[in-house]
Amino acid sequence: MQNFDYCTPTRLIFGQGVVEKLPEVMSQYGKKILFTYGGGSIKKLGLYDKVKELLKDFEMVELSGIQPNPKYDPSVLEGVKLCKENDVDVILSVGGGSVLDCSKAIAAGAKYDGDPWDLISYKAKAQAALPIVDIITLAATGSEYDPGGVISRTETNDKIGYIDPLLYPAVSFLDPTYTFTVSKKQTAAGCADAMNHIMEQYFCEDSTFLNDGFMEAALKSLMANTKKCLENPEDYTARAEMMLCCTYGCNRIYSLGNSQSGWPCHGMEHALSAYYDITHGEGLAIITPRWMQHILSEKTVGRFVKYGVNVFGIDSNQDKFAIAEQAIDATYQFFASINIPMHLKEVGIDESRIDEMAHHVAENEGLENAWVPLLEKDIADIFRASL
Amino acid sequence: MQNFDYCTPTRLIFGQGVVEKLPEVMSQYGKKILFTYGGGSIKKLGLYDKVKELLKDFEMVELSGIQPNPKYDPSVLEGVKLCKENDVDVILSVGGGSVLDCSKAIAAGAKYDGDPWDLISYKAKAQAALPIVDIITLAATGSEYDPGGVISRTETNDKIGYIDPLLYPAVSFLDPTYTFTVSKKQTAAGCADAMNHIMEQYFCEDSTFLNDGFMEAALKSLMANTKKCLENPEDYTARAEMMLCCTYGCNRIYSLGNSQSGWPCHGMEHALSAYYDITHGEGLAIITPRWMQHILSEKTVGRFVKYGVNVFGIDSNQDKFAIAEQAIDATYQFFASINIPMHLKEVGIDESRIDEMAHHVAENEGLENAWVPLLEKDIADIFRASL
Repeated sequence: MQNFDYCTPTRLIFGQGVVEKLPEVMSQYGKKILFTYGGGSIKKLGLYDKVKELLKDFEMVELSGIQPNPKYDPSVLEGVKLCKENDVDVILSVGGGSVLDCSKAIAAGAKYDGDPWDLISYKAKAQAALPIVDIITLAATGSEYDPGGVISRTETNDKIGYIDPLLYPAVSFLDPTYTFTVSKKQTAAGCADAMNHIMEQYFCEDSTFLNDGFMEAALKSLMANTKKCLENPEDYTARAEMMLCCTYGCNRIYSLGNSQSGWPCHGMEHALSAYYDITHGEGLAIITPRWMQHILSEKTVGRFVKYGVNVFGIDSNQDKFAIAEQAIDATYQFFASINIPMHLKEVGIDESRIDEMAHHVAENEGLENAWVPLLEKDIADIFRASL
Repeated sequence: MQNFDYCTPTRLIFGQGVVEKLPEVMSQYGKKILFTYGGGSIKKLGLYDKVKELLKDFEMVELSGIQPNPKYDPSVLEGVKLCKENDVDVILSVGGGSVLDCSKAIAAGAKYDGDPWDLISYKAKAQAALPIVDIITLAATGSEYDPGGVISRTETNDKIGYIDPLLYPAVSFLDPTYTFTVSKKQTAAGCADAMNHIMEQYFCEDSTFLNDGFMEAALKSLMANTKKCLENPEDYTARAEMMLCCTYGCNRIYSLGNSQSGWPCHGMEHALSAYYDITHGEGLAIITPRWMQHILSEKTVGRFVKYGVNVFGIDSNQDKFAIAEQAIDATYQFFASINIPMHLKEVGIDESRIDEMAHHVAENEGLENAWVPLLEKDIADIFRASL
């Protein structure tokens, strides 16, 4: 078991109707709010009007149009400008993980005098950040319970995971009913994202019985509850449990004391969605079984056996590599069963930029230090196997 | 799934050697420290000298002699007096959960003008508390990661669980090597305490697949690792995993979204250790299987089946009540196998005050609202079955 230093100060307010507490919560942080959101989905939900009504006594500035794979330019830059011009006290992020990730970069940039990219690219260290409150409308990224965000800079094909303890949300509101209208495609992609967050922590050199059991339960829960959500989008219990499994995703609580894995699938997927702007969860689902196949070896097979037996109920009375192969296949088949396109070609990615992306990942993601180190050739091989 | 509102601001610094960070951590909270501890165990460990050396640049006032089942008079009262007289900035609690529980009551009392018992007995609400830093030397109570403490007042046979969000430790240091010298008796009692914390959350009307899997993994981990600790007290990995399982015990993370159980075994055990000052974990181990037997019914049998199959691997192809009975027996046998005395008579409790204790519990612990309501007669029956 490895040493760790862990603190998550975020307050989770979870359940149907909890958004009614918004005015009381926001008043702890000030009067001037930057209200961030994406496209029209929160308006369709009635949540936009609800927030405006609940916060009618506050001063609100709005930043809308934040996209999936949120962009440094214009979203982060515009948000920082709005915060500085309006002397904003607190950011209210309403939407999915992309809106929240963008809001985190804005929160740090608003308290920094230079170019916010300095912070995101770790050229400078933030000394302060605006507090963030969020209302999450999509179960996926876990951004509501972690100190990180992923920001894309289109001009350089960069997609960077920006992490700073200053960026834990102060308060996250999670009402599963706001996820009832999430499309089947996004529900499935959210499940794949959350499952991969767990796999990135599960597949490592040193884990504990406790963490393995916690993560295996979460993986099984995500699979079972996602199926229920796809069959009946208004199944409150299934939406709620899926939401909580996702919330823990990047918080480290699943794996305190585990050795580092290097999060290889995320490192690779960042290039796919930076170059092609695909749905993050779909990119992860496509890569994951090919990465598993690539790293399967005498060193890693034990973890695959545990995963296969405990998550998929594969018969343990078989050759260990047979169990591992069945586990990898079961992973693929699950993603396929929730209608995720399982080939890069199906999401518009062909052979043409594979080598360029592999080079970019090898240069920027540090995967030579992953549990099973991945060099440029490994990454290209995994991409090609995913075509 | 139930609504919840959850926040744990405590920082966990976990692993071998982490206490070296103590000066840096303490300096965030001030210069004047109340250093609380129990008997001689931290001196035998060398931890007393280590703390004094590390904090030689701070002003230290000491409160020693804090007992298991910590006492309001003298410990809490003395601690409050020392804090007020010396204008203490922060409390450093070094020892097990009893020292920390006592330190929490002191932390609240130090910022309160009246009788600290007003706070503990909920006659008044604390408006502030001193920050608390702790070094835990016993894996058991989980006090290092929760906002509660249990305080005994001998003159009235009261043993009260005092909970206030102000009382989350600011920082908890957990170095498993400090638990190497914990006796077999205390190791087993700590395991029983932690297992019961989990059972108090597991046995309820409404749980989730995620929480069940997390708790089942923790129960299995506690059983397996306690056996390893008893065989080899210096098994770092086993001590470390046991410590983390215990730390989560009363933090609610095991059961976010579960319905309330009412913590019936703790409610009953509080009377046993208030009247007879027995070891809390032993009292819990004795009561637990008798309580299980008492509440087994058509309403509850499903939970016992899940528990029996998933925690003890009992064959699921049997009558549900047969599985439940085997699960209860396996619980008893596990505690017996780690040499916990499994009858009240073995810890010095006879028939004489059973009715008085049952009356006290019925009056004070609210167990009429437990998952399976317990009235005075039920409590007396469970006590008698435990003799």
